[in-house]
Order: sequence, then C-alpha cells, then structure tokens
Amino acid sequence: MASEIDRMLEANEQWVQRFPGSKPVRPARAVAVVACMDSRMPLFQMLGLEVGDAHVIRNAGGVITEDTVRSLTISQHLLGTREIVLVHHSECGLQATDDISFADLVEQAVGRRPPWAARAFTDVEDDVRESMRLIRESPYLLSREVRGTVYDVGTGHLREVL
Amino acid sequence: MASEIDRMLEANEQWVQRFPGSKPVRPARAVAVVACMDSRMPLFQMLGLEVGDAHVIRNAGGVITEDTVRSLTISQHLLGTREIVLVHHSECGLQATDDISFADLVEQAVGRRPPWAARAFTDVEDDVRESMRLIRESPYLLSREVRGTVYDVGTGHLREVL
Repeated sequence: MASEIDRMLEANEQWVQRFPGSKPVRPARAVAVVACMDSRMPLFQMLGLEVGDAHVIRNAGGVITEDTVRSLTISQHLLGTREIVLVHHSECGLQATDDISFADLVEQAVGRRPPWAARAFTDVEDDVRESMRLIRESPYLLSREVRGTVYDVGTGHLREVL
Repeated sequence: MASEIDRMLEANEQWVQRFPGSKPVRPARAVAVVACMDSRMPLFQMLGLEVGDAHVIRNAGGVITEDTVRSLTISQHLLGTREIVLVHHSECGLQATDDISFADLVEQAVGRRPPWAARAFTDVEDDVRESMRLIRESPYLLSREVRGTVYDVGTGHLREVL
C-alpha cells in the first residue's frame, strides 16, 4: 500500500543531493527550542536555523510536560545548551477544545478515557507565560534562561511575549 | 543582554517576506512525524514537507512517552491525521550514556535525582522497533499505521526499518 512515508523517502533523495555535510552533536548556538507540533511551523526556516544550530522539542501545544523537562535536561547536561526559546502560535487546535470535552471525545471513539489531560488553553500569551513559569520552577535544569514567543500562522510573523 | 532569540526574531523578518500564505489547521497529508530533537535534522527539508503538511512531534530520542501519546491522540482525534512516521538517527546523544549514569550526572550537578528515566538506548534499530510496538499498543489512537526510519546524520540519507 502506498503511504506518505514512501513520498518522504523519495523526497529525501533530493535532500541527500544538497546535504550540507556532517555537524557536531552539540548544538552550535547552545539553544533549545520548545514548540507546538502544528504543521504550519517550519521552525528552521521561520527562525533562520542552520543544520546543527539548536535542539527542537515539539508536542501538542508546545507545553511543558515531564517529557519536555526530560528532553531539556538531556539537552543541557549532556549536550551543552543554555538558552530556551518557546514558540506557541495563533489558531491552535488546543484552543478549540477543553480537557473535559477532549476526554469525552476520545472515550466515545475508543471506549477508554485517557488518564492524562489534553492541556487545552484559551489565551495563547497566558499559556506562554505559564510555560516560562514551569521552566523556571524545574529543579533539574542548569540554566533557566527562557524567552517566549507567539507565531502568527496567518502572516509568518513571530513576536516575543514579555 | 543579547541572546539567541534576538537573532531568531531578526531572521524571522526574512521569513515573513517569503511566507507562502495561510494554510488550514488540519495537516494536508494526514501524517504525524515523531522524531528526535537532534539539531542536525531539519525535518521539513529532509522529508520534503511543505507548510501545512504534517504534525511534527520531537523529544530527546524521538521515543514514545505519555506526552508523545497525548500529542498523537490530539493529532488523530482533533486534527484528522492517520499515519505515523518515526525518525530516529545515527550518533544520538542518548547512545553515549545510560539511564543510571545520566541520573548520577544530574544529581551531582543539581543535588536532586530525576524521578524519570533518560530513555538511553544502545541499538538504534531496536529503539525504532520498540517505539513502533509502543504505538501499536496504545489504546487511545484511531490509527496505529506506523512506519519507522533511521536518518544518517553523516550523509543525509533516510532508511526505513523493517
């Protein structure tokens, strides 16, 4: 059966032709980006990143979970990053639901209620500030230097949340 | 203080000039990619993805955690994706440690031992297969159609793990 992965493997042959060469495992700019999984955010292009520049951590909402903290802790202790940049965005799917409605939806579809929350939110700037707060409270990081942004999926513009 | 985010905000002005226009929130190719956070993987370029094509979930190792399952469940139930593609890679930082050594390292540096495992691994293909198994066992997904790949950070080549 044809599948999206077959298209990706084919497209990868073109990437191999213009591959810029190998880079060290430690990110050159010593930064970790934490962003939403949204399909409209090509982070390398949006932020001017080159291959080897920055770690990229992404999940639904770009929220800070135990897994985000695990990834950031590895990024800092093993691979030398010291700054954290958060990228949330306008028109997020998690603003179109709430945690109870989402759990209901999943339970109705698969007969089982998830034990974890969807982490829905209403105000994107508040959500960025809450994520910065969670990072500053994490006891495992070596650096809590964090700044947050919101990306406008309608214009491509990134703005800092102060 | 100058910071990496200032360079990113500046670089973003160039992106705004060539922004391809707004796209729907639902991924056009109905696929979610789960990949390692490694700085050497520009996924859109490597896989031939356009803005709006696919969700991108990334963490240390590209492993399947509760947060990965949360993100995939939202991706499928709320935003219509049906295929999952895993992207692990050669020379991963998580192959250079083990869970005990990493917990020791963090404890020595910050005085507190993390309650979660780093999820270190030795064989990358085994790790891809383990991730595929965890996805197939997840009770919350609507589709468990998953395929796994390993990216060679020395050549840019992506190969499927069968």
